[in-house]
Formats: sequence, C-alpha cells, structure tokens
Amino acid sequence: MSTGFIGLGAMGLPMAANLQRHGLLHSVWNRSAEKAAAFAREHQCLHAQTPEALATECDVIVLCVSADQDVLDLCRQISGSLRAGALVIDCSTVAAQTAREAAALLENNSIAFLDCPVSGGTEGAVNGTLAIMVGGEESAYRRALPVLKAIGGRISHLGPSGAGQASKATNQIMVAGINQAVTEAMAFAKAQGLPLEDLIDLLGAGAAGCWFLSHRGPNMVNGEYPLGFKVELHQKDLGICREMAAGMGIKLPVVEMTMLHYQRLLDEGYRDEDISSLFRIKEQMFAQNGKRDDKQ
Amino acid sequence: MSTGFIGLGAMGLPMAANLQRHGLLHSVWNRSAEKAAAFAREHQCLHAQTPEALATECDVIVLCVSADQDVLDLCRQISGSLRAGALVIDCSTVAAQTAREAAALLENNSIAFLDCPVSGGTEGAVNGTLAIMVGGEESAYRRALPVLKAIGGRISHLGPSGAGQASKATNQIMVAGINQAVTEAMAFAKAQGLPLEDLIDLLGAGAAGCWFLSHRGPNMVNGEYPLGFKVELHQKDLGICREMAAGMGIKLPVVEMTMLHYQRLLDEGYRDEDISSLFRIKEQMFAQNGKRDDKQ
Repeated sequence: MSTGFIGLGAMGLPMAANLQRHGLLHSVWNRSAEKAAAFAREHQCLHAQTPEALATECDVIVLCVSADQDVLDLCRQISGSLRAGALVIDCSTVAAQTAREAAALLENNSIAFLDCPVSGGTEGAVNGTLAIMVGGEESAYRRALPVLKAIGGRISHLGPSGAGQASKATNQIMVAGINQAVTEAMAFAKAQGLPLEDLIDLLGAGAAGCWFLSHRGPNMVNGEYPLGFKVELHQKDLGICREMAAGMGIKLPVVEMTMLHYQRLLDEGYRDEDISSLFRIKEQMFAQNGKRDDKQ
Repeated sequence: MSTGFIGLGAMGLPMAANLQRHGLLHSVWNRSAEKAAAFAREHQCLHAQTPEALATECDVIVLCVSADQDVLDLCRQISGSLRAGALVIDCSTVAAQTAREAAALLENNSIAFLDCPVSGGTEGAVNGTLAIMVGGEESAYRRALPVLKAIGGRISHLGPSGAGQASKATNQIMVAGINQAVTEAMAFAKAQGLPLEDLIDLLGAGAAGCWFLSHRGPNMVNGEYPLGFKVELHQKDLGICREMAAGMGIKLPVVEMTMLHYQRLLDEGYRDEDISSLFRIKEQMFAQNGKRDDKQ
C-alpha cells in the first residue's frame, strides 16, 4: 500500500514519520515546501511538488490539515488525479458536514473517503498511540486499517461518513464541560482556603473522579499550565461543535460558556497554555470580587 | 466511648447501625419518635426521650440531619446537657459558616465540634465505606477516629471548622459540572446518531474519562435513572454552594446553570431520580428544536 501524506504540522509530521517506520510512506506534500523537503530528506521518502502529483502515485492519501475549507479544496484538487479505488483518510478535525461533503465529492470519482479525527495530542502522535474515531464505509475502514494501526493505538469505527467527526466533537464538548467543572470547583476550594493536593486525591476517588482532575489538577496548584492541549486549538474545535449544534438549530450551554471564557484567555495572551489555564478565569472571579470588597 | 446518634434518616439509620455493630452506640433520638423506638428495639440500644436526655448520657453525639437551622438548634439544645470535654460530630451537609457557628457555640461550654459531611450515598452508609471530610481541631479529630472509622472508609482531616463542609461543597460543584459535561455531550452524540455505548468506552479511555461517564452514561442509553443520588438532594446541596459563593460576593456559573436545569427536572416530577436524569433536559434542547423545525 503506497501512502501519500499531506500536512506536516505538529500532529501530521510525527504521524507521517510513523507511516515511514512501518514501510507505508511513499511521498509527502506540505503547503510550505521547505518543511516537506526537509522531512523527505530525513525520512527518505519522496517530496511531491503538488497534491496532484502525490495523488497520481499513491493508493492512499492521508490528510492532516487545519481548516474545513482546506479539506474540501484538497479533495477537489486531488480527485481528478487519484485512480478509481483510491482511499482518502482525513485526520483533520473538521465538521461532520464537511466530512460528508468531501465523501460525496470523491464518491463521484469512485474514491473512498474516511473521516478519522484523532485524539491524544502530539505525544500520542509521536508514540503512535492516538485514538482514532472513524466515519465511513465498512469496506474502506477495513482497507485503511494497516495505515490507521501505524499511527493509532485505539481505533473505533463509529458509523457512516461524519460519525468520526461527530464523535470527536462529542469528546471536545465533554472535555470542555469537565474543564469547567474541575476549575470552578478548585477555584472555590482555593478561595475557601482548602488544601488542594489533598482534595485532588480525595475527590478523585469518588463521584467527581476524572482524568482531568488527576492529570491537570496539579497545574492549578502550581499555577503553571504546560501542554497538554492548547487553549487556541480547543477553542477552534469548540467553534466546530457550535456550528454543528447551530446546524441542528440549538446552542450548547457548556460550549457557549467555555468559548466565552477561552476568549478571555486568548485576549490575555494565554493561547499556547494548556486548557486547564481556564483556572485563571475562575480565580479572577474570586479575586475581582476581593478587589471590589476592598473599595467598599 | 459512649455515643448518641441524632437523625435516623436514609443516611443516619445505617450509620447508627454501624456504630452499634462496633459496640459504640449508647442511645438514639429522632424527631419522629416511632422511628427511634423501632431502631432501639431492633438494635438493642436506648431510645432517649429528648436530645437533652441523650446528651447527658454520652461522650460523643453524632448529628445527621437535613437543614442548617436543625444543626444550630440541636447544638443549642444539647450544649447545656453535655459535660465539658464532650464531642459533637456533625455528619449533615450544611454551609461551612454554619459549622463555624456551631463550633463557636459549643466552644463556650468546652465542647468540641467537628464538621464531618460524608459522601458515598446510602450504599456507602450501609457498607460503612463513606468518604468523610473532616473540619475542626486536630485533637478532636483524633478522639473522633474510632467513631468515624465505624461509619467511613476514607477519612480526611482537611482543616479547621468549616473545612469539611467546604470540601463537600467543592465535591458537589465538581459533580454538577461533570454531570453538565457528560449529559450535554451525550445528548449531542445521540442527536448526531452515534452509537452511545461505543462512545462511553472510547471517550472513557481518554481525556474525557470520568467516573460519571462510566457509571451513569449507561443510564442515558437506557433512559432510566435509578439511584444513585437524588436530584432533589443535589439541588439542596448546590443551594448551600450558592450561598457560600454569595458570601464571597460571587456567582458560580456552573452551579447557577445546573440549579436552573435541576429546577426544571423538579418541576417535571423527577426529584427522586438520579442526577444523571439531567440528560432529559439536554435531550429536550434538541427535541424542542426538532419540533420547531417541523413548523417551518
């Protein structure tokens, strides 16, 4: 199986490197050509000059880009060059509707499309342990497995086109709400003068127990928010969730509240911190009132 | 150590039974006398005719009642009858400020007070595995340990008077937010037509992993919300959290949103369901819009 990789960003680059390690990588293309050239030199694969050139030489194309429009543009661009029976695997995080459009667009040329957003961060990408949420036809999913296994640890086929993206959106909504829960409660506890480390242990053992409290709670104790998952990226993903909800005519209260709070973090220059820095906003709630009290 | 128990409700009754099993229970009192008489017959302890009578005979009094005012009234009532050096252990869930007032009130008569709210539900009360969050003086805490160990599994001393209640409030805020996170995300997933059981497994293994998703997610799949923890009781506890926050001059957004949603559940007659029935409200968001779409 000859695989081409498009999009050598923070996630895409280590994913492409894992494909090469498994003998599956044929060639790469990236918007900024220098990055692709350097990668091709280091990993001894080909550097395609255009997406179309890459498409003519590969059975499978993996996309890992940033925006919904990029996915649709690239699919249009390569659809004429791919042979019938080729397979496009999109690991970008975009709207479910975008995945369905891309799938329909390629289906006209008898090319299969799978939406395969990942989670697990750059660490999971480097170690090849990403969780991969797959939407698309069963036959395409089976054909994609060797490629998916080279980049992921836990791979789930969750339904037709769009189901992978909808599952990723579900995850991002849940993480946003859990972040709200943990940071609001911890800021309350801090304002009450409680010993936060003890609380992380105690509450983590009961009904409030969660990965986020155990793994990100210590950030709040230390006032440092190393990555993790960037505020800026979660905000982008929540924008997708908001649009998907708007497509069903509704607003998601947890998503709306979190996007408002994240925007404050972005405005204050914390875009590159881990999302647990939402604790800063919750602490401000208490601190600002404290100031108001002083004036009285 | 001769212990008296006041408040034989859903939690208090099995807690008192565990004290009796450990040979620590002397007598009980309950507002409705029949319940206390029946308990005393069954568990072969004394049935005190008044809180004052119980207080004269015991070194340790455990309270397990419903409201802040009940705690303060009972402490006033028994303070003259308890001997100096006695200890009051309050397992009710009330405001931290109430605990501090009760402690101050008893301190005048050289009686120690510990706020010891519990979590773990009636199951934990029956099995003697409750988590107990203790606020008060170290010396009183050490004296209380035999009693606390008879009713609890995990016992943490978290600071001076009020720290136990503040810790319980922190837990209730966090659980409210996690409930919001899980139910909103799961309702979104259901509206997107995703396989919910698979998602519970998949998301539970990542950054969204939490006790609530694993243990209460299946309720949402089944549309049944067995106890668990009653909506009505969590609403009462969140009212305490709201008052504690108001005492610091602020509103907690997660708490405000959840109280609003719980009120809808209470209005619709779901007070005795597990709190995961918040999923009903989140599903309504999507269903109501669906109806609106039909009219367009």
